[in-house]
Amino acid sequence: MYYIGIDVGGMSIKGGLTDGDGKLLYTDTVVTAGAYTEEHTISEDIHKLTAKLIEGAGIDEKELKGIGIGQAGSIDSERGIIRYWNNIPMENVHVREEMAKYHKAPVFIDNDANVAALGEYRFGSGKGYDNLIFVTLGTGVGSGIIIDGKIFRGVEGAGAEAGHMVIMAGGERCNCGRRGCWEAYASASALIRQTKAAIAAHPESAMARIAEEAGEVNGITAFKAAKEGDEAAKAVVDKYIDYVGEGLVSLANIFRPRAFLIGGGISKEGEYLTAPLQHKLDTENFGSKFNPEVVVKPAILRNDAGILGAVALAMQGTDN
Amino acid sequence: MYYIGIDVGGMSIKGGLTDGDGKLLYTDTVVTAGAYTEEHTISEDIHKLTAKLIEGAGIDEKELKGIGIGQAGSIDSERGIIRYWNNIPMENVHVREEMAKYHKAPVFIDNDANVAALGEYRFGSGKGYDNLIFVTLGTGVGSGIIIDGKIFRGVEGAGAEAGHMVIMAGGERCNCGRRGCWEAYASASALIRQTKAAIAAHPESAMARIAEEAGEVNGITAFKAAKEGDEAAKAVVDKYIDYVGEGLVSLANIFRPRAFLIGGGISKEGEYLTAPLQHKLDTENFGSKFNPEVVVKPAILRNDAGILGAVALAMQGTDN
Repeated sequence: MYYIGIDVGGMSIKGGLTDGDGKLLYTDTVVTAGAYTEEHTISEDIHKLTAKLIEGAGIDEKELKGIGIGQAGSIDSERGIIRYWNNIPMENVHVREEMAKYHKAPVFIDNDANVAALGEYRFGSGKGYDNLIFVTLGTGVGSGIIIDGKIFRGVEGAGAEAGHMVIMAGGERCNCGRRGCWEAYASASALIRQTKAAIAAHPESAMARIAEEAGEVNGITAFKAAKEGDEAAKAVVDKYIDYVGEGLVSLANIFRPRAFLIGGGISKEGEYLTAPLQHKLDTENFGSKFNPEVVVKPAILRNDAGILGAVALAMQGTDN
Repeated sequence: MYYIGIDVGGMSIKGGLTDGDGKLLYTDTVVTAGAYTEEHTISEDIHKLTAKLIEGAGIDEKELKGIGIGQAGSIDSERGIIRYWNNIPMENVHVREEMAKYHKAPVFIDNDANVAALGEYRFGSGKGYDNLIFVTLGTGVGSGIIIDGKIFRGVEGAGAEAGHMVIMAGGERCNCGRRGCWEAYASASALIRQTKAAIAAHPESAMARIAEEAGEVNGITAFKAAKEGDEAAKAVVDKYIDYVGEGLVSLANIFRPRAFLIGGGISKEGEYLTAPLQHKLDTENFGSKFNPEVVVKPAILRNDAGILGAVALAMQGTDN
């Protein structure tokens, strides 16, 4: 019994074929078209990849039990439709239906953060936590919520957008149009903005030197300088982690999961990031001592998160 | 077939007995003891009331199918235990077990906001909305969350505390110990504090006069003055409604329910409160036009909300 997991990105589509235990047997990639039309939808390119995977792994297609697809944008997972995506613009693409032309195996599609959450729950650092929230700190702040072992999506799959919970009413403008969203404070993009402001205020800091040497300010600039003992950088990092923590404590009070899993590039900071977050949760949680603990851990699937999450989606969809 | 609903408050315990459709046949009240002990727990007083209800309604106890109890504090609904309550201090009261000494009918207990949400869903303004969030604007901000027709509680019933979602990081101190919680801005207590501050700044305002005539500042002072056209009061009300809305939009993005039901004394303001909230939701929701609408309505069960919610809890527990 085999499964395929597909991870659709803006530049390329990555895929992997696994056995029934989620062990990757073969992976491959195809580039996306710059634009798609009603005649040439993304399903065609996804099929190019599934065909390569089946051929590459050398399996009999009859033994392919399910195909999972993780993809950003607004997804109607119940009907298997990409409602819209703004990265490579598309609307109302009936992926499940279109893929049925190519494969007998059922196709499941879901939002990338949901899929990554399910993957961490099944194969990663979320194992054993039936109730968890996966938070990815990247360009934005994505969230995937697992309740009793299942993805929580909200009505028509339009929920689980915790990045657009306000933590600072009237604060920084967010891409969604609101002011003060968690994403506007806790994303890697926000950290870069915060780092740039601190560099402008402290041009003599180690942080400024590190940025100059690297030729850019990125998500690790402040962390690197802080670890060298730079005070200006420490202030940036402390404040940033506190913003991340504000959202986590709120979500703990709302959902009371067993665990938070932190993904995205910044999660590579490991304990340097998670230890203060754990402290904040332990001390600021509602009814702290009386209520069950919520653990913070880095996500661990990294580059394979999208593929393995999509495999987990296919497995859950086919009751494995 | 009959049900009993019990609504435990700090001063008194209210109860009602209904038929299988939730029609109230008899209601009564007992006062709570000022303190309870391990020997004399609240179960004894709850039983005083259930006995009065059965006698008053003149039913045969064999036809009593279930007893529901709604109560503030931390409740372990699965095991039927009051974990702790700070109002009349108690810890680890095994209500279900204790009540089994008196009645054969099964006993269900849950947090008051959860119970109220279920009551509005079954008998009130939430009818037909399988996914809804009940928000009560009172001394605090309580929330009850219904997902697919069932109460969402979080791990060990410790979730659904949306009042302790931060909307203003580092802002007003909340009773829970955090700063900037929604409750610290959107509760009736917060509104009273905001009204008092505005009266101090505008002693000449109609709002100041209304407060003086009433001999106090309460949750309707600013609303009343705003409706008379008082500018200072309008500013208070607009700002307050905006705080309420900040939390609602965040919860819409996180849960994407079909409806918000607003309860508590302030919900008596009706459309004056809900119309601007609806506008804010419609315009600030994530992916507004593309995503399903979330409706804001006042809760309607009012004084009977606790009793009827507890009846709904008993009905759901006994699969009616």
